[in-house]
Formats: sequence, C-alpha cells, structure tokens
Amino acid sequence: MEEQEEPIQNLWQEVRDLTLGTTTQINHLSSPPTPLHFFREYISPNKPCLISNAINHWPATTLWHSTRYLLNTLSSSTVSLHVTPNGHADALTPHPNSPSTPTLCFASAEVQHIPFQDAFTRVLNSGLSSNCVGYLQQQNDCLTTEYGALSKDCDSDLAWASEAFGCLPEAVNLWIGNEISETSFHKDHYENVYAVVCGEKHFLLLPPTDVHRMYIRDYPAANYRYSQDTGEFSLELEEPVRNVPWCSVNPYPSPELKEKEMAKFPLYFNGPRPFEVTVRAGEILYLPSMWFHHVKQSPDSRGLTVAVNYWYDMRFDIKYAYFNFLQSLPHSMLCSPASFGKLGGNSEDESRKGNSAASANDNILDDSDDAAEK
Amino acid sequence: MEEQEEPIQNLWQEVRDLTLGTTTQINHLSSPPTPLHFFREYISPNKPCLISNAINHWPATTLWHSTRYLLNTLSSSTVSLHVTPNGHADALTPHPNSPSTPTLCFASAEVQHIPFQDAFTRVLNSGLSSNCVGYLQQQNDCLTTEYGALSKDCDSDLAWASEAFGCLPEAVNLWIGNEISETSFHKDHYENVYAVVCGEKHFLLLPPTDVHRMYIRDYPAANYRYSQDTGEFSLELEEPVRNVPWCSVNPYPSPELKEKEMAKFPLYFNGPRPFEVTVRAGEILYLPSMWFHHVKQSPDSRGLTVAVNYWYDMRFDIKYAYFNFLQSLPHSMLCSPASFGKLGGNSEDESRKGNSAASANDNILDDSDDAAEK
Repeated sequence: MEEQEEPIQNLWQEVRDLTLGTTTQINHLSSPPTPLHFFREYISPNKPCLISNAINHWPATTLWHSTRYLLNTLSSSTVSLHVTPNGHADALTPHPNSPSTPTLCFASAEVQHIPFQDAFTRVLNSGLSSNCVGYLQQQNDCLTTEYGALSKDCDSDLAWASEAFGCLPEAVNLWIGNEISETSFHKDHYENVYAVVCGEKHFLLLPPTDVHRMYIRDYPAANYRYSQDTGEFSLELEEPVRNVPWCSVNPYPSPELKEKEMAKFPLYFNGPRPFEVTVRAGEILYLPSMWFHHVKQSPDSRGLTVAVNYWYDMRFDIKYAYFNFLQSLPHSMLCSPASFGKLGGNSEDESRKGNSAASANDNILDDSDDAAEK
Repeated sequence: MEEQEEPIQNLWQEVRDLTLGTTTQINHLSSPPTPLHFFREYISPNKPCLISNAINHWPATTLWHSTRYLLNTLSSSTVSLHVTPNGHADALTPHPNSPSTPTLCFASAEVQHIPFQDAFTRVLNSGLSSNCVGYLQQQNDCLTTEYGALSKDCDSDLAWASEAFGCLPEAVNLWIGNEISETSFHKDHYENVYAVVCGEKHFLLLPPTDVHRMYIRDYPAANYRYSQDTGEFSLELEEPVRNVPWCSVNPYPSPELKEKEMAKFPLYFNGPRPFEVTVRAGEILYLPSMWFHHVKQSPDSRGLTVAVNYWYDMRFDIKYAYFNFLQSLPHSMLCSPASFGKLGGNSEDESRKGNSAASANDNILDDSDDAAEK
C-alpha cells in the first residue's frame, strides 16, 4: 500500500514539483532580467534566483577591496557596530536566568556608535578567540546615511528591479562582517535583492509553504551588554518581558546535539532539504519576501565579507493571505502523531509529546519585524 | 467577548481586506494596462479587473451588430450549436432515473453541427416557450476554426495581454447566445480575457480562497438528447457512470427553494458576497485563473449576446499549490459545527448533519476541464 502523505507534506512537495524545482539549486541568470521577465518568472511565483553580471559597473566592485580606500572614505563617519560574544545576533541562546533547566531566549547584539576606523578594526580582529565579534550593519537605509560617503560607489537602486516592483527601494543597507557572524533562520516582510561585493554569502532557503518546519515559537527578548572594564558580555532579559516569535531550528547543530535537535524538529530535518545558494562577489541573490533564510559567510583575503542589500516593499496579496491561513493551522491539525513519528523516527509516545507541546504556540504570527534583524 | 472566527473565514476576509476590496465591485481601467502593470497589479495577485477602450478598433464592434453581415460572412460555415431545454448546459439538474427521491446529475447540452444560418435562427428563436434553447459556442479555438470567416474582425491576440503572459492565447472562442442561457458556477485552469461585442454579460465572481463555499461534489454525467420527431429532450445518464466534480451552489434559487438552499450551503449564502461585474459591449473582463464564476447575459436589441474570449495558459505556481492544499482540507477540519450553525442560522443539530454529509466528498479535486464547459 502506498504511504499516505499528510496534506501539508503534499504542499511542500507540490510547490517544488510545480515551480521551485526538486533539487537544492535555484535558477542562475547570466545577466539581469527584464522587469517583466523578473516579475513573471520570479517575483510573482515567489521564487529565488541568482543573477550574475548585474553590478560589474559598480566602482564598489573594485574600490571596496581596498582597505585603505574604505578607511579614507569613511574617515569622518560614525557607524553602528553590532557586537556579540559569538557572532550570533538575533539568535536563540540559553536564557541567563535559568542555569538549572536551560531554556532559550532571543538575544540581540549591543550596538555601539563609534568611528568607522575603530569599528572596522574590531571587525577585522573579530574571532572566536577574541570573545567579541563585531558586525557592521544597520538596517535603516544605512548605505545612504551612515555610509553615505560610499553610496556613490553603487547604484542607488537597481533599475530592472525598481521597474519590476514599481517603486524605489525602501532601504539600501551595507553589511561588513566576517566568517564568525551567522544569521539564524528568519523571514522578512520585504522583497530582498542582495548583492555581494567582497567575499561570499551562503544561504539556506525554505519557501513560506514550509512555515511549520521552522517551529516558530515565542522567546523572551534579551540584550547583550559589553563591559569595557572586564572585556566580557552579560546577557540581560528585557523587563518587562517581551516575547519574540522566532524560528527554533538551527540547521547546523553540533555533532553532540544533532540527534536531539533532529528529534525535536523532525519536520525540518526529515522534510525536503533547503535550497542552498552561495552568492559570490559580483553576484546578486533575489530573496523573495516571506522566505525563511539562514546566512553564513566566507571572507575575502582580508577576512571580510561586504554586501549591499535593497529592500523593496512586498505586496500583501493572495499569497500572503494563503500564508497567514497556513500558519494559523496548528501542527496538531496538520501532522498526525503517526506521520510525525514516521518523520521524526522517534517513538510515537515521544512524538505525541512533541506534537502537543508544539500546538501551544504555533498560531503565533511572526510580526517581529521591528524587534529583530531582518 | 469578540466572536472567534475560524481560520477559513479569516482567509476569506483577509484576501478581500488586503487585495480584492471589501465591496462587490472590481477595479475598472479606462484603457488597456501596460503588460508589466497588468502582470503586477492583476495577474500576479490573481485579481479581476474590467477594462474599457481595449477593442474600439475591432471591426467586429460595428460589423457584428449587423445580422445580415453575420449571415453573409458565415453563409458557408458549419458551426456547433449547443441545445438544451432550458439554457442550462453543464449544470446540475434532477437525475432522470430518480423521480421518487430526486438527486442531481451534471447535464451537458446536445451539440449539433449545422449550417450557421440554421443555428443562428435557432438561437434567435430560443425562448423558454420554445422548449429548445440554442447557444453557439465551442471551446476549441472556434473563432479561428468554425468562425474563421469572422476572425479578421477582431485581434488574433491582445498584445498587452500576450506580452504580459509571455505567450499567445491557447484558444480564442466565440460565444453567441441569448438571455436564456446561463452558466453555472465553475472555475477554469486558464487565464481568461473576456471581450463582450454585443449585449452584456453579468458575472458573479468568487476567489479561489473561497473554494469550500462552492460545495464541490461529485455528480454523475448525463447528456441531453433532442428528438426531431417529438421536439422533446430526454436526459440520459452516461454508461458506465462518470462522475464530474461540480459546484453545488445556485446563486439565484427560486423563491420557494431559497430557504432550503441557504440551509444547505450556508458558507456561500452567509459568507462575503460574490463580486458582481456587468461587462458591456466594448468592455473586457480579466477573469483570473481558478476564480469561480457564474454567468448570465442580457441581449442587444436583436436578442443576442456576442462575446470573444481569449484563454491564456495559467502558471501552476505557489498560488496553485496553496489552493490545492486548501481544497484538500475537509470542511469538517475547517468549520466547527458551532460556527457552521452560526453561519447557517439553523440549529446545531441540523448543521452537524450538514457538516458530516459535507465531509464525504469535499477533498475531490476539480479536474473536470475536459468534461465540462470552461
């Protein structure tokens, strides 16, 4: 007898069979598409693609490889440096006040407003041994504000994208970091056009249809505080408690945690593999709105990854309404204990427990745009 | 305490709040849109619109008002006339073999291949008193085949639509009927661009999100047979039985049936009202793929409604995957007996019965394209 899949598993498979493809690769365009082609083939079907030869004309693609150029150009700029002990900002980490039965909180970086030269040195010196990892970024249109002196080195918008979306970018952001910084799985309510200038970015991508595989749960917000005196971080829970809905899945668990994580998040680890994209210097990723993405980076020879991303307003249309409907359905309605157990490979009793625990929070809307890194 | 809506009702409301609008009106464009605007604002969000001044240049808009012109031009053409006793082809009607406990079947017209002059006269003379209603139509690209002599009077495709869809029409069909003919609620797996040349068409439209409100059920296929001898129709069930999934809702029940129909189909009658569009001579309706539509018509002074529609291939993308997922969820999962009763205004016991009866068939996929009128 053929195995009966649940409707939700059929959905994950069908969106891949119909439009996204059944491998872990995404489409790769050798040049920027026309606006209509971009809209019809990628924006409308909410489908990512990689685009080459779209930013060859940017002075940034040569100038920004020079550290001297960056230091000179931004010599009088004050910028926002995000510092964490481990490169994981806006990420789940053990709760500071619960040492006996560790639970997780949503930890945000400390943001320091300091001269670019100091900040840049801190990023270059960031390493696991340094106990302080810096990431230059600020998602408030920072390329045209904090880094205004660099903005002439790239296009203020991408003409083919702006014409397709029918608007100018809502924000253009600069990102300067190194291989220690990692961005945990999350989604944005923006269309994202992401250009890598130096180094490489490695994305894992899951479509919005797969929302239940992310195990979005509420976590209390906490903030890192760095002490200049001790050179150590503390992590402070926000008072009053503010909960942030966030994806629970770490796609790269350490070997000793792997089995436990796979048992906790079977829909992720046993479902279709995420799409994997490496965006190299000079390439652009179209990252559609509402897609879950996890980002790691590889540095250039200096130890830096530099990128510029354009946020365009998304359309809140029938796709968004379908997504909200899907997300509002609890795991318990979509995944029978039997199939849950089958997926997870754990015993039915365990999976029942997991399933029932999952039901408590899973109709939370992920509206954490303001709170969390986009 | 605020009333708690079911997720499915939130979906119906949200798609209207976000994109379709909360009235029964659709957008009206005073001229054809650019391809990109059409794709971005209507095709991608799967949103209907009415378009004026798109076919003013067609010779058809003047020539086809002349009966003499039509008769002369098609004097040597053989065409397909669809005849029924009541103007309801591809519609639910009482089952011929069950007079004691009437059940419904899916009845198709008899198709007669006859000279245009004869067919045209039959349409003009169609009336409830005549006991035989003719509708000239054939959904196989008939404007360029049976009615090839007329095809020079309109555009073979609509340039702005073809550029938007990225392809030429799959079929261009001509429709000549009168006010007796009515098309029951159904959906098509095509993008439909519908131009009215003479008379008016009156559409009721429901978005694909509202699929459960259509109560799609399996009905046995039957065919009308017209006897020249008796001038009467018989209705014959197909042997072997072939089931056609079809919408159960008649939006215009007779006064004596209204209460019963409203109790049987509460999600339709108590949910958001359908969009209502009258397409007048010279206007075009963009009827998005997968939208449920019911069509009535008003004749011109001769007693005719004449229209041309263009079918473009739809994209089977994430919207289609979401739709299939939604449709695969049984009523019983989406509508609690309590809310069902609330919607239906009938007692909880009755609504429970309705609900449980509904569950039997409601995950049938409506793949009746080939079987039924599109």
